[in-house]
Amino acid sequence: MLRRMLCVSYISGMSGNAFGKSLVLTTYGESHGDQIGGILDGMPAGIAIDIAEVQRELDRRKPGQSTLTTERTEHDLVRFHSGIFEGKTTGTPIAFSILNKDQRSKDYGELEKVYRPSHADFVYDAKYGHRDHRGGGRSSARETACRVVAGALAGLVIPEVIVKAWTSAVGPVELKTNWQYLDLSQVDSHPTRCPEALVADEMAAYIAHVRDEKDSTGGVISAVATGLAVGWGEPVFDKLQADLAKALMGINAVKGFEIGSGFAAAEMLGSQHNDEIGANFETKTNNAGGIVGGLSNGAPLELRVAFKPVATIGKEQNTVNSEGKSVSLAAKGRHDPCVVPRAVPIVEAMIKLVLADHYLRNLKYTR
Amino acid sequence: MLRRMLCVSYISGMSGNAFGKSLVLTTYGESHGDQIGGILDGMPAGIAIDIAEVQRELDRRKPGQSTLTTERTEHDLVRFHSGIFEGKTTGTPIAFSILNKDQRSKDYGELEKVYRPSHADFVYDAKYGHRDHRGGGRSSARETACRVVAGALAGLVIPEVIVKAWTSAVGPVELKTNWQYLDLSQVDSHPTRCPEALVADEMAAYIAHVRDEKDSTGGVISAVATGLAVGWGEPVFDKLQADLAKALMGINAVKGFEIGSGFAAAEMLGSQHNDEIGANFETKTNNAGGIVGGLSNGAPLELRVAFKPVATIGKEQNTVNSEGKSVSLAAKGRHDPCVVPRAVPIVEAMIKLVLADHYLRNLKYTR
Amino acid sequence: MLRRMLCVSYISGMSGNAFGKSLVLTTYGESHGDQIGGILDGMPAGIAIDIAEVQRELDRRKPGQSTLTTERTEHDLVRFHSGIFEGKTTGTPIAFSILNKDQRSKDYGELEKVYRPSHADFVYDAKYGHRDHRGGGRSSARETACRVVAGALAGLVIPEVIVKAWTSAVGPVELKTNWQYLDLSQVDSHPTRCPEALVADEMAAYIAHVRDEKDSTGGVISAVATGLAVGWGEPVFDKLQADLAKALMGINAVKGFEIGSGFAAAEMLGSQHNDEIGANFETKTNNAGGIVGGLSNGAPLELRVAFKPVATIGKEQNTVNSEGKSVSLAAKGRHDPCVVPRAVPIVEAMIKLVLADHYLRNLKYTR
Amino acid sequence: MLRRMLCVSYISGMSGNAFGKSLVLTTYGESHGDQIGGILDGMPAGIAIDIAEVQRELDRRKPGQSTLTTERTEHDLVRFHSGIFEGKTTGTPIAFSILNKDQRSKDYGELEKVYRPSHADFVYDAKYGHRDHRGGGRSSARETACRVVAGALAGLVIPEVIVKAWTSAVGPVELKTNWQYLDLSQVDSHPTRCPEALVADEMAAYIAHVRDEKDSTGGVISAVATGLAVGWGEPVFDKLQADLAKALMGINAVKGFEIGSGFAAAEMLGSQHNDEIGANFETKTNNAGGIVGGLSNGAPLELRVAFKPVATIGKEQNTVNSEGKSVSLAAKGRHDPCVVPRAVPIVEAMIKLVLADHYLRNLKYTR
Repeated sequence: MLRRMLCVSYISGMSGNAFGKSLVLTTYGESHGDQIGGILDGMPAGIAIDIAEVQRELDRRKPGQSTLTTERTEHDLVRFHSGIFEGKTTGTPIAFSILNKDQRSKDYGELEKVYRPSHADFVYDAKYGHRDHRGGGRSSARETACRVVAGALAGLVIPEVIVKAWTSAVGPVELKTNWQYLDLSQVDSHPTRCPEALVADEMAAYIAHVRDEKDSTGGVISAVATGLAVGWGEPVFDKLQADLAKALMGINAVKGFEIGSGFAAAEMLGSQHNDEIGANFETKTNNAGGIVGGLSNGAPLELRVAFKPVATIGKEQNTVNSEGKSVSLAAKGRHDPCVVPRAVPIVEAMIKLVLADHYLRNLKYTR
Repeated sequence: MLRRMLCVSYISGMSGNAFGKSLVLTTYGESHGDQIGGILDGMPAGIAIDIAEVQRELDRRKPGQSTLTTERTEHDLVRFHSGIFEGKTTGTPIAFSILNKDQRSKDYGELEKVYRPSHADFVYDAKYGHRDHRGGGRSSARETACRVVAGALAGLVIPEVIVKAWTSAVGPVELKTNWQYLDLSQVDSHPTRCPEALVADEMAAYIAHVRDEKDSTGGVISAVATGLAVGWGEPVFDKLQADLAKALMGINAVKGFEIGSGFAAAEMLGSQHNDEIGANFETKTNNAGGIVGGLSNGAPLELRVAFKPVATIGKEQNTVNSEGKSVSLAAKGRHDPCVVPRAVPIVEAMIKLVLADHYLRNLKYTR
Repeated sequence: MLRRMLCVSYISGMSGNAFGKSLVLTTYGESHGDQIGGILDGMPAGIAIDIAEVQRELDRRKPGQSTLTTERTEHDLVRFHSGIFEGKTTGTPIAFSILNKDQRSKDYGELEKVYRPSHADFVYDAKYGHRDHRGGGRSSARETACRVVAGALAGLVIPEVIVKAWTSAVGPVELKTNWQYLDLSQVDSHPTRCPEALVADEMAAYIAHVRDEKDSTGGVISAVATGLAVGWGEPVFDKLQADLAKALMGINAVKGFEIGSGFAAAEMLGSQHNDEIGANFETKTNNAGGIVGGLSNGAPLELRVAFKPVATIGKEQNTVNSEGKSVSLAAKGRHDPCVVPRAVPIVEAMIKLVLADHYLRNLKYTR
Repeated sequence: MLRRMLCVSYISGMSGNAFGKSLVLTTYGESHGDQIGGILDGMPAGIAIDIAEVQRELDRRKPGQSTLTTERTEHDLVRFHSGIFEGKTTGTPIAFSILNKDQRSKDYGELEKVYRPSHADFVYDAKYGHRDHRGGGRSSARETACRVVAGALAGLVIPEVIVKAWTSAVGPVELKTNWQYLDLSQVDSHPTRCPEALVADEMAAYIAHVRDEKDSTGGVISAVATGLAVGWGEPVFDKLQADLAKALMGINAVKGFEIGSGFAAAEMLGSQHNDEIGANFETKTNNAGGIVGGLSNGAPLELRVAFKPVATIGKEQNTVNSEGKSVSLAAKGRHDPCVVPRAVPIVEAMIKLVLADHYLRNLKYTR
């Protein structure tokens, strides 16, 4: 059976490692190689770069920030190699890298021949004729560190835009308060990245419980972006919500995406859903989530992203090995019971990349 | 205020009218120009084209199929201009067009100076410095007719793949049956495109009620695709679910997208959500929705798309005109109370375009 | 032998029918289908379009302008289908088409099974598993009519730029005068498109002679563009001269490209070749041809393009048929003895497409 | 004056640092930053990589190989960071870097405010609002080291193709022998990379003379590639010669490009130029240079590239500084009197990148 699969391996190019049209991020690197990194091409010249600020953003993503997340201590220090001179962008491509210091690949030895359920092991083997069992290879979420770096740079292209994401659900524990009544400056003050302390504590307790069960849990991240001008996005295929959806559905473990009213729109009447336009062309409600006809309308961008529970768990599961024989697997190693808190800066980064790209695609043509 | 907006008009290129990487669809045309059309570039040579079959697919999208949808009778006849010779593709670009016969632009005269709530009127004016008030211009869903044509062609690249979509919710009326227990051959036998007659009738009654209220309703389309090989999709940014999300969120009125478990994943435990791998490397459940690590795993692709209610309604609403003055608007003209049934072939077409594109991106490299 | 070739047929996508990054032209159509055409995507909104002017440009390319060129009378009337409203661009894609009225495919019947020397017949057969023998299919220079239309539109994006091309050699007859001493307004006043009457007459006599011999001749087109700002082009792979070279080498029958000093540079010393910079940062000489480091330097763009003689000739030649058997071929039908004069507007069009694209790629980022 | 220029600075994206469609090389790095490097995306999985062989290719490009070239000793050691596991490609992007060890930026201090004639100094300042005076920044030919690395990898995708380039002219000294009578295995045995010893010695003497005069000289590189299948390239804009022209005109200092007969075609008759097709569909002559209709025809690819003399010379020249004042400049530092010998591996690398890209774009679609 596997042999049949293997004959589709040795796959050709167009590998999908680049994102964006005007501002293009290309990333590289496996979780357990010597380093990961990327090239951000298309940054305008003359933008002041505060490297410490980029590093802070990257620090928000790293594991080991609390006992709720994985205990590995990744030493994620970003280094820049080009495109910045005397503290400013030069207009040339910005290359950066992050060393993989703590690889401990022996933890993964047991996985060499086992296909973890709901993991990329099997499909990589089938597509490429091999896989890097040392921790997921290219399928590892470690790649998203590069997105966080690039997103921080992208944010500097559109300084008037503020992007804030937060954990709005963990398993059954949900934060239902509308964002306008939340203090989003408090997102990072709790390990769950839920800005309301009571709900945050409840989420933390749930994650601790799941961790003790050697299990994992899913969750939801909500995000809002303010400061967009009117008209970002393109009418047909590159609608702003379409590019956002691609950006966010491309994050590991994401299973759903909503803009504005999202799935709730399906149950609504037009007379309920329509956002009346008032003075200054501003809408009174925001079921649109800040986008109409594929273009930003000046209202806050509002979106939600659903994450599945982490696939690798300590609990025993049935699966097969690469020969197709049934085996039982209880994964060792260090695994997050819930990736949602750590994914908050990744969500923000992908939103910034999309918005900066569309900002640059919308530059004025004036004669 | 508008003047401030207008200074962002005269926007430059990268207009987002092309979709795909190996198989590229570029569309053109306004709802009330002389024709719409497109070019599909990248079709392999030697594929037999049954033009009548393409036309049938296009007919499924047209309005006026029942009293539930708009009464306009669009004469949508596709004409091919290149890339097909003696009934087969030649490998050169396939150009096609559809005449706009029934333009009746006078119906839209009232809208010249009014910004319809939740419509693209205002943002187009702001972005481009003008808008085509004769029916939405480029923002009209009429453009999706081109996608249906191209999707039918794309389907011929992957004949082993079967893509089926259906109406699974209209307002509060929901079809909860798992697709494996549905007779998907019955989708087109009911005007709502819901394959279960009892629920379909309920949906129809709800739409009729909404129409009588001069209102509109949202809904949900579900889709499944079988016959995918293992390994379609790319690991990082061009994950299969990411490209599907972009494709589907780019359809007019779509507000949400789910693959597999979707938002329900957020509440699940890893031990519940993981799809155990069994004999023949097949999974027993399909929470993944047919994709792991961004690549198809051979299980059926399962996704859901949420549509908002149509923005243009006969019911009176408050809004502003282009001078920013408050006006009351009760739209005349012919408007669908629910676009969901007509959107079923559009959803199928976009899925086929994504799958054929990724199929071609995965061609074997053998030496 | 052919069978071996045919097994590489049924080739997949990425067919290379689109050109440009910000301003993208996609063309379609075979020489003897019902029409050819294209979509120009990325035109900024608000540009006034003089359709008669575009038509005039297209008329410059058509055959039958004198006895020196082919006698077919192509009725090339461009029709626009989208993207223009009330005389101005709307920012949406501009689709256009040109009917193929005078197809006379019977003239080509004899060629169905013969591979013309230096023609695309054999390679198309090998690549696609078939070919359209009715006049070259996609390989016909008829496709360039679409480029002329698009180039005329592109020119409107950069009205300050003046692009002029002319015939500077036909076979051994060469116009050696530097362009600054030529009256380029006279290019169209002679059927050869050589602006100096005496040399033009000599060229005409040579073409007439070659035609009488049932043979064909090559030639050279020179071009100059003024009005470029400083800084168009990109530093590395998309140097302005690189994109120009691609654009011009992609015209049928072109075998060579030079920018500025061209091949003569190979024999020069640095002290001779360097263009001294003087007052106002202007150079005194222009060996650079208007480009340094891949970017325009404000000096006139100067380039030259070499055309091979037309492959299809009335003179008898040896070749093979699709079975690989030797045959003798003396092509009937109507064939240009020299395409150079008709290629002048095509060269101008491709230059305009490149310059408008790079203009749009260089839009200001100001905060 | 400069201020007027500076207002066009702060240019936006699409920076042209990526090359290819299926096999995509993105490079980064300035001549005097800490490193240069690149990402090659789209390499099929399972290709054995001999890193020492890649390094040997890179060594061929380095300066200091003889007294004929610059005396700097660049320590160009390529390091790979991803995409290779246990000696084989994994199908994920291959990142590589080369440290800049010997930066000696003080040599360039004098140039901070002087615009060197025929150099990128002025246009970079105008476009980006600054320049990196420490040796050319992104405009330095040092970037081409990355192309050599990527070209060596690309060559492994098409092992049946042999690409050989050589110095065929230096100033007035020309090697006129047809390549079929040359021993191309001898290219590297002479510092000039001219395979015929007598001519090579003459070239060397001319370069030494020019160097003693503190001047520089141009030259020509010829190249041939054998082993191409029939049908590589795409019919319209991405003709094989068009993509080759872009690739080679994008190398620093290149001013002209010819395929096959090149500019000589302009003087030829069709009956002379046409390549008769004989047995096995092979042509007897090769004026086409291996390409008809934009597609490879199986004959050897033959092309020529003209290089201008190096702009930076020790000889005194007049120019201006960044204030626009006249200054006299006699460049210090270490400069090649002739870059042509070192450019031979760069020409080969760019050809390999184009051919491997088109090979992958032509993968079989078989059902």
